[in-house]
Amino acid sequence: MSESFNTLSQKAGMESGALIHVGNVLEIESTIFLVDYSQDTCIQKVITSIEELAAYKEKRSVTWVNIEGLKNVKLIESIGKMFNIHLLVLEDILNTHQRPKLIEDNNYLYIVLKALSLEGKEFSVNYEQISILVLDHFIFTFKEKKDDLFSPIYKRLDNSKGRLRTSACDYLTYSIIDMIVDMNFIILDALNLATDAIEDELLSNPIHETILNIQQIKRELIYIRRSVSPLRELITALLRSDTSLIKTETHVYFRDIQDHVLHIIEEIETYRDILTGLLDIYISSVSNKMNEIMKVLTIFASIFIPLTFFVGVYGMNFEYMPELKWKWAYPTLWASFILFASTALFYFKKKKWI
Amino acid sequence: MSESFNTLSQKAGMESGALIHVGNVLEIESTIFLVDYSQDTCIQKVITSIEELAAYKEKRSVTWVNIEGLKNVKLIESIGKMFNIHLLVLEDILNTHQRPKLIEDNNYLYIVLKALSLEGKEFSVNYEQISILVLDHFIFTFKEKKDDLFSPIYKRLDNSKGRLRTSACDYLTYSIIDMIVDMNFIILDALNLATDAIEDELLSNPIHETILNIQQIKRELIYIRRSVSPLRELITALLRSDTSLIKTETHVYFRDIQDHVLHIIEEIETYRDILTGLLDIYISSVSNKMNEIMKVLTIFASIFIPLTFFVGVYGMNFEYMPELKWKWAYPTLWASFILFASTALFYFKKKKWI
Amino acid sequence: MSESFNTLSQKAGMESGALIHVGNVLEIESTIFLVDYSQDTCIQKVITSIEELAAYKEKRSVTWVNIEGLKNVKLIESIGKMFNIHLLVLEDILNTHQRPKLIEDNNYLYIVLKALSLEGKEFSVNYEQISILVLDHFIFTFKEKKDDLFSPIYKRLDNSKGRLRTSACDYLTYSIIDMIVDMNFIILDALNLATDAIEDELLSNPIHETILNIQQIKRELIYIRRSVSPLRELITALLRSDTSLIKTETHVYFRDIQDHVLHIIEEIETYRDILTGLLDIYISSVSNKMNEIMKVLTIFASIFIPLTFFVGVYGMNFEYMPELKWKWAYPTLWASFILFASTALFYFKKKKWI
Amino acid sequence: MSESFNTLSQKAGMESGALIHVGNVLEIESTIFLVDYSQDTCIQKVITSIEELAAYKEKRSVTWVNIEGLKNVKLIESIGKMFNIHLLVLEDILNTHQRPKLIEDNNYLYIVLKALSLEGKEFSVNYEQISILVLDHFIFTFKEKKDDLFSPIYKRLDNSKGRLRTSACDYLTYSIIDMIVDMNFIILDALNLATDAIEDELLSNPIHETILNIQQIKRELIYIRRSVSPLRELITALLRSDTSLIKTETHVYFRDIQDHVLHIIEEIETYRDILTGLLDIYISSVSNKMNEIMKVLTIFASIFIPLTFFVGVYGMNFEYMPELKWKWAYPTLWASFILFASTALFYFKKKKWI
Amino acid sequence: MSESFNTLSQKAGMESGALIHVGNVLEIESTIFLVDYSQDTCIQKVITSIEELAAYKEKRSVTWVNIEGLKNVKLIESIGKMFNIHLLVLEDILNTHQRPKLIEDNNYLYIVLKALSLEGKEFSVNYEQISILVLDHFIFTFKEKKDDLFSPIYKRLDNSKGRLRTSACDYLTYSIIDMIVDMNFIILDALNLATDAIEDELLSNPIHETILNIQQIKRELIYIRRSVSPLRELITALLRSDTSLIKTETHVYFRDIQDHVLHIIEEIETYRDILTGLLDIYISSVSNKMNEIMKVLTIFASIFIPLTFFVGVYGMNFEYMPELKWKWAYPTLWASFILFASTALFYFKKKKWI
Repeated sequence: MSESFNTLSQKAGMESGALIHVGNVLEIESTIFLVDYSQDTCIQKVITSIEELAAYKEKRSVTWVNIEGLKNVKLIESIGKMFNIHLLVLEDILNTHQRPKLIEDNNYLYIVLKALSLEGKEFSVNYEQISILVLDHFIFTFKEKKDDLFSPIYKRLDNSKGRLRTSACDYLTYSIIDMIVDMNFIILDALNLATDAIEDELLSNPIHETILNIQQIKRELIYIRRSVSPLRELITALLRSDTSLIKTETHVYFRDIQDHVLHIIEEIETYRDILTGLLDIYISSVSNKMNEIMKVLTIFASIFIPLTFFVGVYGMNFEYMPELKWKWAYPTLWASFILFASTALFYFKKKKWI
Repeated sequence: MSESFNTLSQKAGMESGALIHVGNVLEIESTIFLVDYSQDTCIQKVITSIEELAAYKEKRSVTWVNIEGLKNVKLIESIGKMFNIHLLVLEDILNTHQRPKLIEDNNYLYIVLKALSLEGKEFSVNYEQISILVLDHFIFTFKEKKDDLFSPIYKRLDNSKGRLRTSACDYLTYSIIDMIVDMNFIILDALNLATDAIEDELLSNPIHETILNIQQIKRELIYIRRSVSPLRELITALLRSDTSLIKTETHVYFRDIQDHVLHIIEEIETYRDILTGLLDIYISSVSNKMNEIMKVLTIFASIFIPLTFFVGVYGMNFEYMPELKWKWAYPTLWASFILFASTALFYFKKKKWI
Repeated sequence: MSESFNTLSQKAGMESGALIHVGNVLEIESTIFLVDYSQDTCIQKVITSIEELAAYKEKRSVTWVNIEGLKNVKLIESIGKMFNIHLLVLEDILNTHQRPKLIEDNNYLYIVLKALSLEGKEFSVNYEQISILVLDHFIFTFKEKKDDLFSPIYKRLDNSKGRLRTSACDYLTYSIIDMIVDMNFIILDALNLATDAIEDELLSNPIHETILNIQQIKRELIYIRRSVSPLRELITALLRSDTSLIKTETHVYFRDIQDHVLHIIEEIETYRDILTGLLDIYISSVSNKMNEIMKVLTIFASIFIPLTFFVGVYGMNFEYMPELKWKWAYPTLWASFILFASTALFYFKKKKWI
Repeated sequence: MSESFNTLSQKAGMESGALIHVGNVLEIESTIFLVDYSQDTCIQKVITSIEELAAYKEKRSVTWVNIEGLKNVKLIESIGKMFNIHLLVLEDILNTHQRPKLIEDNNYLYIVLKALSLEGKEFSVNYEQISILVLDHFIFTFKEKKDDLFSPIYKRLDNSKGRLRTSACDYLTYSIIDMIVDMNFIILDALNLATDAIEDELLSNPIHETILNIQQIKRELIYIRRSVSPLRELITALLRSDTSLIKTETHVYFRDIQDHVLHIIEEIETYRDILTGLLDIYISSVSNKMNEIMKVLTIFASIFIPLTFFVGVYGMNFEYMPELKWKWAYPTLWASFILFASTALFYFKKKKWI
Repeated sequence: MSESFNTLSQKAGMESGALIHVGNVLEIESTIFLVDYSQDTCIQKVITSIEELAAYKEKRSVTWVNIEGLKNVKLIESIGKMFNIHLLVLEDILNTHQRPKLIEDNNYLYIVLKALSLEGKEFSVNYEQISILVLDHFIFTFKEKKDDLFSPIYKRLDNSKGRLRTSACDYLTYSIIDMIVDMNFIILDALNLATDAIEDELLSNPIHETILNIQQIKRELIYIRRSVSPLRELITALLRSDTSLIKTETHVYFRDIQDHVLHIIEEIETYRDILTGLLDIYISSVSNKMNEIMKVLTIFASIFIPLTFFVGVYGMNFEYMPELKWKWAYPTLWASFILFASTALFYFKKKKWI
């Protein structure tokens, strides 16, 4: 998730409140999905114009509007006007390089989150910014991409006996955040597999790629933590705020999310420590390999270099070398060579080099 | 204790409050053990149906119900209904991947803990989640496994003169938590032995497995700390809460537990530092070994390679090599070889290489 | 941005309030640029004497005086007298070795910031201290250098329909700080490129210069963080202060800046971690290279040193060496040489050295 | 001070308040030393039975009872009954594996400390737990061992003009704690010597034992810090408490102790940093040594291996080797050998290898 | 500044308030310099007896008494009696192993500081403890050594138009502390030079002494930080205290000092990070050097060891070696030698070893 700030930096010095979509994902068309429910009814339909919402403003039922794709800046602008949303909040919805945060205004809460999902086979994480705008009996969610992230919630809303149908906006808000937070457990599962794979690799045959893998996962962990850990203060702020949009009886649910967040942060910290440990093992492996290479060299060299000297001696062409004429010189020499080599091997064995 | 979040991640998006047992240990059958005591009497028996508890709800005696094995979700559900427990708490009882925590409700306290025990011969720790539900004169404990963890407390309850028999629920709660916390000292003892073993290994013959052992213990330490350190805030929260379930005169006992927790955390930190030190010693040992190997190679090579050159010189077949005919050339050469070798050895001795 | 404290240390023991320009950049001449605007009019002009400001003191329009170049100490002094500014503040304006900070007085706010810009091709950051003095309907900005940093704001002020024209000093203050903070995103972009370049270098051909680059960027990060992170408390202090110069409805904008600052600090921390990871990869690369070098040496030496011994043996000049006369000795020797070499190569292959 | 928790872990599950002596030092017999003083008189005597204290309970003089040796559990128990001390406090007195802490009750303060002393010649620290029980005009001190730790205070009490004689229990408490804290300075002195010795060793001849020494001192530092740093909060708690046992005019003395504690903690931190630095120097030394070894090998090998090849060439037995017959071939070869060797040496000199 | 606690440890167990001079610097004679000033007059003179101060007690002018040399314990004692100073404060004045701290009493403030100065050519810092005792219209300063540290302030006091002459004790206190704090900038300048020198050394020719230099500066940094960083809380405590000795209008000046302190602490942290970076570069340099050495060895050995084998082959004395009789054998061999060497060199070039 290494971000490019090109667009952001181009904005430097511009009038704040100038609405521009800043981000990496640019959907061709925004789609608007509307869910309106009370205990008795539940309507789920795609709408094409934001004006259709006017009818729901009067009704006391809960209306959830999910907008996927942020290309249509006008759409965001008209929602802003219709529901009296601050320009800075609209800017934040369109800029997908936000830290998770909570903005509280008189008539609404604005929550930014990151939804994490796995991408491809390797351990590589995908980030999607999700903005939640909670009004009195309206909830807006803004997503970068078109996917079926929210479909489990749609299904639960269809069930007329579920808790969701009998509850207000705050419980729907909880359900959305809870689902996004719980998706991190899938990431942690994948992390577990990836770490195990590296450990196996380390024990069987550590190569230079192993350290690149370790570093790559470490880097992903940094990004995951950056997207999860601000949730801690976000929910604390939500619980401490005196907004009437979140009822006191729903607090226990948000506290449950906070427990999950703490659990996830702890897991991430644990994996960081484990990866650091794996790095130590890798470095130790490399040193051990070097030691082994040097041992082989040293054993061969220390045995044969002296022997080569001695055979060299008797290869000299001096006229007066008495040994050359001795009958048993040659076998004696061989005997001493074998003695020397055995002694050396015995010494290396004692030193545990062999 | 590397956890798999498979089940957890499958729950993402589900209605919260849908009771499912999440965990690694699945007992075939749940057993219910009931202890009912006052100063005069103490009944200890296995019951088969939760309905039998109805009779004890009226009585003013302390009733402790210990449920081992969490497979029977219906059982937990009916306790929830009978004693008016929040669905999220019931969910937490069944999900054994909890951080130690305290949930306070109007009529009960819910405490989650991890009981640690040693497994096998190597330093490997076993974790069991224990939930404690403290009501006015009822205590429920929920355990993952069937074992005799609580039998020392059962025995003390048999003794009619013990403090336990004359006290209310809060003292029993203290006794249970105190026992679970004190079990960590057994772990610390084993840790001490394991660390000593590694240290001996390091000083005698450090091998690559040593670093794997160090890392393995380091990892266990992370998990132990994760299961112990939240107890600090848990008990602080318990002491600060204005619940009437824990009487002020029992506070001194909980403060005593907190001292033990602090002691355990300090010990864990100390072992972390010691293991880091052992790692440094290991790395230094490997370097030293390498140095020694290289010294042997260098000594042999630097002495015999030059000598081999000189014997090679007199092995050349030039027609005009006057030295070859000199009578004393051969012994002179030997003398200079010995001189050179002695000088080199003396030099290496001075450099403390030998 | 390694600073020299020569001038600062010379001041030790001097009367505080003795105005001296302390810094590295010394402009030849200070220029004064005046912008005076209300909803209806907007005057932008260069003025030559500070006395011209007297006329604007009466008017209720917002007057922004931007002074570039700090050589003219008298100028700062006369502004100090005219607007009743504390001597220590004037000293701080002239001393460009300040930490970003906020000083609050009865009638004005004094804010010091660092504007960062890129210099040259390599990743090298330039720092300029900018002092902002916010009075009732006057704003002074003091810059070290002459550049067009503020020209985007000048342009926006020309536009009579912009929010700036209808707002008071506080919104202009926000606009200036926002622009300076957002310039950091340009730095982060360059940082991203520089880190990627190092990573590519590491993977293709790690050389000693790579580590120098890593360290150089790490050092720049330290300086960037030093100039950014105090902004966090600065804006917190601004929001908590009970000054009437910043209206409550402008708070939301300053909170937005604070989000940006948090984002920037997080990015810097992330890059620190990434660079540490790159360092680990570099060190691992160097070890791997060494291993490879040693492998080549060991393979050649372990094969040919023993062989050389054997050819040496049959180069000896003993009179009684029966093998020398055998007809098949020479080809047999070659065969055993090839056998030995193959065995060795096979062994190295099995050890994954080749 | 690596502790064994055997006894502690055996206690897991036992009735709290069951008095057992837990610790490593078991004195044969407890001795009771009584000091009773007011401005006029000072009695110092050994008493044999705790019942003798009854007489002093009535008197308004300060009575200090120092008990050395904790084997006599009955003794502690009867003091507990006589002065109405909580069972948990009595347990803590007997268990010598306590963290330094303060327990405040209605009628007394209970303070646990560790007195540090040096043991033997090497830098090895001895720990003794000292419990102080401060009552209205009674002070009990409980020591593990029999030694003359308190004799300087006994002597000062003999002097009728000292501040101690005119003061109440709180000043005696201060004097005792102050003395125990100041004993750490002796440890720091020894630490200074030990660190200097290691540094000298590192600069002259670093061997593998050096790193063991560094780690051993590092480990002692961990234990020292564990016994000192809790004193910080202990005294803060003492100063904040609203107990009437410590008068406000004595607070300045306890603040003085706190300054000493801060000083000691700072020193310990400094030594930690210094030892880490020494470790870096050691690792660098080992690398340098390796470099030097390899240089010697490389110089010898790179000069003589090529030369040996050339002498080998002219040792070949080809029939048609024209050089062998040239008259000046042999001296020419020698000349070129010397030229090659000089060039190589010059090259190594330029590379600063020689 | 490694301190010896000999004297301190000897004091363990002594009556507190027993005045003894503890420190490393023992001046032969204390000198007393008196400055008495009001707006109109300024007397500066050396006095010989403390009794002369009596006259100034009545006057409303500011009286500054600077005592250099702490040998004369009687002098300190009589000041203590005359101005009613607590014994513990007098003890602290005489003990020059204090952390910077503030003690507030009814009628005076006691401030301890460390003045840093450079010693010799190498980067080595000298520490002097300076105690400041601020009374109603009296200031005492106690210095360990005789030097002209305060002469710039004496000069400024001579100038009847300076702010000092018209201000009370608090502004003089500020001026003294400000000067002592600002002296750190001189240290930072020297630190900058020392770090640059090490960096140059690292890039040109890193030797083992380089790491000793790095460690030595790192150690000095620890001591500098220890003497500077407590100033932060000291001044915070001063500003928060409700003493009447420091007037509210002087607070802005003390806040200015605090900015300087923060700046100095930040610089020290930066230098720590830079030195850690230099250490990494050093370690990398050593590894690179090793790599280079090994490359030279490997290139020479891998080329010439195989060649030597082949020349050895044709040096064998077998009777039946057909090649020896071939006419073109010798030149063919040379050709293949050159081919082999070229191939090897090409391979090493491709691997970027040459």
